[in-house]
Amino acid sequence: MKLALKFLPIIKATSFQLRNFRALGAMACSRYEYVKNYEVQDVLLPNVWIIIRIDGKGFHKFSLNLMTSAAQTVMEKFSDIILSYGQKTNVYNRRSSKLLSYVTSLFTSCYVMYWPQWMGNQKLTYPPSFDGRVVLYPSDQNLRDYLSWRQADVHINNLYNTAFWNLVQKKGLTNKEAEAKLRGTYAAYKNELLFSEFGINYNNLPGMFRKGTILLRKQVNRTKHDISKQLIVPFHEDMISDIFWKKHSELLADKYSPGLYTQTDDDVVPESFIRKVEKISVE
Amino acid sequence: MKLALKFLPIIKATSFQLRNFRALGAMACSRYEYVKNYEVQDVLLPNVWIIIRIDGKGFHKFSLNLMTSAAQTVMEKFSDIILSYGQKTNVYNRRSSKLLSYVTSLFTSCYVMYWPQWMGNQKLTYPPSFDGRVVLYPSDQNLRDYLSWRQADVHINNLYNTAFWNLVQKKGLTNKEAEAKLRGTYAAYKNELLFSEFGINYNNLPGMFRKGTILLRKQVNRTKHDISKQLIVPFHEDMISDIFWKKHSELLADKYSPGLYTQTDDDVVPESFIRKVEKISVE
Amino acid sequence: MKLALKFLPIIKATSFQLRNFRALGAMACSRYEYVKNYEVQDVLLPNVWIIIRIDGKGFHKFSLNLMTSAAQTVMEKFSDIILSYGQKTNVYNRRSSKLLSYVTSLFTSCYVMYWPQWMGNQKLTYPPSFDGRVVLYPSDQNLRDYLSWRQADVHINNLYNTAFWNLVQKKGLTNKEAEAKLRGTYAAYKNELLFSEFGINYNNLPGMFRKGTILLRKQVNRTKHDISKQLIVPFHEDMISDIFWKKHSELLADKYSPGLYTQTDDDVVPESFIRKVEKISVE
Amino acid sequence: MKLALKFLPIIKATSFQLRNFRALGAMACSRYEYVKNYEVQDVLLPNVWIIIRIDGKGFHKFSLNLMTSAAQTVMEKFSDIILSYGQKTNVYNRRSSKLLSYVTSLFTSCYVMYWPQWMGNQKLTYPPSFDGRVVLYPSDQNLRDYLSWRQADVHINNLYNTAFWNLVQKKGLTNKEAEAKLRGTYAAYKNELLFSEFGINYNNLPGMFRKGTILLRKQVNRTKHDISKQLIVPFHEDMISDIFWKKHSELLADKYSPGLYTQTDDDVVPESFIRKVEKISVE
Repeated sequence: MKLALKFLPIIKATSFQLRNFRALGAMACSRYEYVKNYEVQDVLLPNVWIIIRIDGKGFHKFSLNLMTSAAQTVMEKFSDIILSYGQKTNVYNRRSSKLLSYVTSLFTSCYVMYWPQWMGNQKLTYPPSFDGRVVLYPSDQNLRDYLSWRQADVHINNLYNTAFWNLVQKKGLTNKEAEAKLRGTYAAYKNELLFSEFGINYNNLPGMFRKGTILLRKQVNRTKHDISKQLIVPFHEDMISDIFWKKHSELLADKYSPGLYTQTDDDVVPESFIRKVEKISVE
Repeated sequence: MKLALKFLPIIKATSFQLRNFRALGAMACSRYEYVKNYEVQDVLLPNVWIIIRIDGKGFHKFSLNLMTSAAQTVMEKFSDIILSYGQKTNVYNRRSSKLLSYVTSLFTSCYVMYWPQWMGNQKLTYPPSFDGRVVLYPSDQNLRDYLSWRQADVHINNLYNTAFWNLVQKKGLTNKEAEAKLRGTYAAYKNELLFSEFGINYNNLPGMFRKGTILLRKQVNRTKHDISKQLIVPFHEDMISDIFWKKHSELLADKYSPGLYTQTDDDVVPESFIRKVEKISVE
Repeated sequence: MKLALKFLPIIKATSFQLRNFRALGAMACSRYEYVKNYEVQDVLLPNVWIIIRIDGKGFHKFSLNLMTSAAQTVMEKFSDIILSYGQKTNVYNRRSSKLLSYVTSLFTSCYVMYWPQWMGNQKLTYPPSFDGRVVLYPSDQNLRDYLSWRQADVHINNLYNTAFWNLVQKKGLTNKEAEAKLRGTYAAYKNELLFSEFGINYNNLPGMFRKGTILLRKQVNRTKHDISKQLIVPFHEDMISDIFWKKHSELLADKYSPGLYTQTDDDVVPESFIRKVEKISVE
Repeated sequence: MKLALKFLPIIKATSFQLRNFRALGAMACSRYEYVKNYEVQDVLLPNVWIIIRIDGKGFHKFSLNLMTSAAQTVMEKFSDIILSYGQKTNVYNRRSSKLLSYVTSLFTSCYVMYWPQWMGNQKLTYPPSFDGRVVLYPSDQNLRDYLSWRQADVHINNLYNTAFWNLVQKKGLTNKEAEAKLRGTYAAYKNELLFSEFGINYNNLPGMFRKGTILLRKQVNRTKHDISKQLIVPFHEDMISDIFWKKHSELLADKYSPGLYTQTDDDVVPESFIRKVEKISVE
């Protein structure tokens, strides 16, 4: 078994001429066209939440902002589409492969293109790549549970990793020793360890690491004189609690329209993001 | 219906620690983990040819070399995988979504990363993106018919476009007039038009435009003193004829190993590609 | 392309011995076992309504009771399963093909087996067969809309057919003439036609024909002295209205348990069904 | 989660009238018709072998002839269809669910209907049912390997069971003792055991038990004066060997037409089957 990779850039761009032509003289083509029937329909079930999960390997903390930036652009590009979802229309007629591959491709594209903007002098030495998959969730509760699951994972991983690397880098333990010390311990133990041994209050660490980044489409009032603008705003809030879903009640509302958001001085949203989004999508 | 986009970069990188940990203290997670069961298996049928088709919109001829370069890198990255296919093992256990999204992502990544190399001073002003799909073909004949179909399309499109743009650019016809003049005409008419009106022998135009680009893995002997090297070589040959499949008989052979290829002076393979491939994958 | 039909009755019954054995001496088998990997997983999305639609062709009104009887037995056989659904367990692990083919098969089996009971002297002259399909509906509203759609269809068909056959059988019109007379007419016209020409008040015709038959699992109190029994009871009610869903509120309740039902004298439920169900499943 | 079973016998029969009507006055319907879009397309990949496997539980050896008889009728009913496969047309447009459920239903129907014919005085006390699934095999070798796998299983099971029941019934061993005696033993041991202890030459046992039953469509010459007839003939041959596929070479031929078969006196085909098939499909 071999993988036949075929890249077909020219064809789509001129496909309308082709169609005109085909009806008349191009009989030679038709003999092969039966192969079109081998394409499998993969339309997604209507009336369910669509999660597109994009994974990458070997990325580190420093690229988190780059990731967020790439995700913001994907949301900007899909802005009409999300709106039309609210209006019960269909992105790509819900064709699973098309939706999945396009979103993954756009995310990758932004990641490479915005690299210099976020990573400074660090050079990109290899073509980074991501894989994705589509999962469907029928109910609002399923959606909330999915997001709670992901956020609980982020918490557990980040707490473990924070303790682990402090033991290794500040106490000089080997990886093995640090692992042995932490194996089977509860969150409370690791919190206490961080505080007593390293003077770290875990809950004061940046929300981006403890909670992950959630991007929401919001109407933002930035200053008194501003007319509100629709922006894609990063949040680092607790999605497990009910508070999040009340505060952002537009998310599960029957008719979707971006929620209102008034920025305050002590807001956790980094200025850099707000500026970036404005630059691209508003001004 | 709304699209919930979630990008989860941290989690995968540290998943092994998570697993150690979860077995002991992390009971809080388990309540949500049922959502994992909503993922649908999408394993591809074994023993068939897998075509991954990648489409993009709004690209023009000048990016053809960039496309080829991106495709070459995808083939380089998948070299073990294709080999392991030959040995009857499985890429990503034939999971359709993973395979599709990864290949599309890697192609996009290369496209953006190699842009400056091929497009000179022309700036990339937007994040380019592609969508893909997987189609399965059970028999060798199906595979050949698929490729014949694509190549017949390339031919028809390119002949039409060559005639069209010559009429517009050299004769000053409007787009509408040119379209009217060509509507419903046969290949012979367009060939004759190009020759008598513009002195163009269509068959002498670059094979890249008339035939498209086919990338094959080959053992290449470049000079007498060279030890042969495995390269990914671009061809612009006629895949509809039997000759192609005899010349590259390794493609449909039961046990795949890259064919031998001796480069000659009048070879159509552009020097630039050969150099590029060596640079990346061999030296 | 040919259809390879293979019926394999023996194997499953003794599969446990096979497995014991296989581990030791049966090396000859293993060479072929790779073919198992060609089976595609077809697990249904959790947390959605599953509709199994069973169609047959060439059946007439007289077999309606037989159909109902067959459907009752299917519900009896699946009684634990529906209960376990309520408890969030899974029939056949939600394997689509298995669920679909088993239910269709059992329905067919009952149809042939109960034929003499319902069709009297009329002989079964050919093996009747049905085809089925599985459709998923995520929300309660989707489920109600699906059932409303089917019941609206039953109404339109039955009104048309009643008018059509009265015109043909009582007025002597040809099929073509009757069709022409009814083409494009509204329900009101056909109601009026039935009343003025044939003295038929459409709304007084049997509910079974106007509304179709709905089978529900109910706790039935039949007499004062009876302890209530769980029966599968046929209804011919209007599922489009809210009343139906309030009356049978257990259907959309989070925790399913059969509703209570007190039979009255003027009840539309035919006595024959109640007796039949008791005979099989209760006494 | 609950299972919504809906049996819809009337609708299909009159669907053509419905369509006429719907276009004009039946606006009430359209509000619900969106639910049709929830049906998933499940068209099977072209150009592959389709195996429909039908399983049942709790059946015993005495119903083997009944099974064969049911399978024969399925083949008779699908005779045009198989022929049209040979002509590259499509049964039910290759819709997987429809094909699977119809074939399983027809098989069940025949099983119940022909029960009295084959099971004599033994009454059918419950509605028997079967489940099925569709598996695709791309190459001829895959098909042969699948059938070899099934036939090897039949052999292993039958040899084990023959030894097991002889030990239990003739030697008075308990089930446990018999199992212990046979556990881990090779075929040679069981063959020797049957011969030395019970005087049974395993290879002389009926082919139906040792090899299973294969039904093939054949042109049969029964007597000198007969014009050949197309029959569905049961065989109990070794499908693992090449001989079978040479003898019945029509099976893997590009253009399918039933093979010729001349019946001889010592033929293993039971007379009863031949007669039955003639009765139904020929005379």
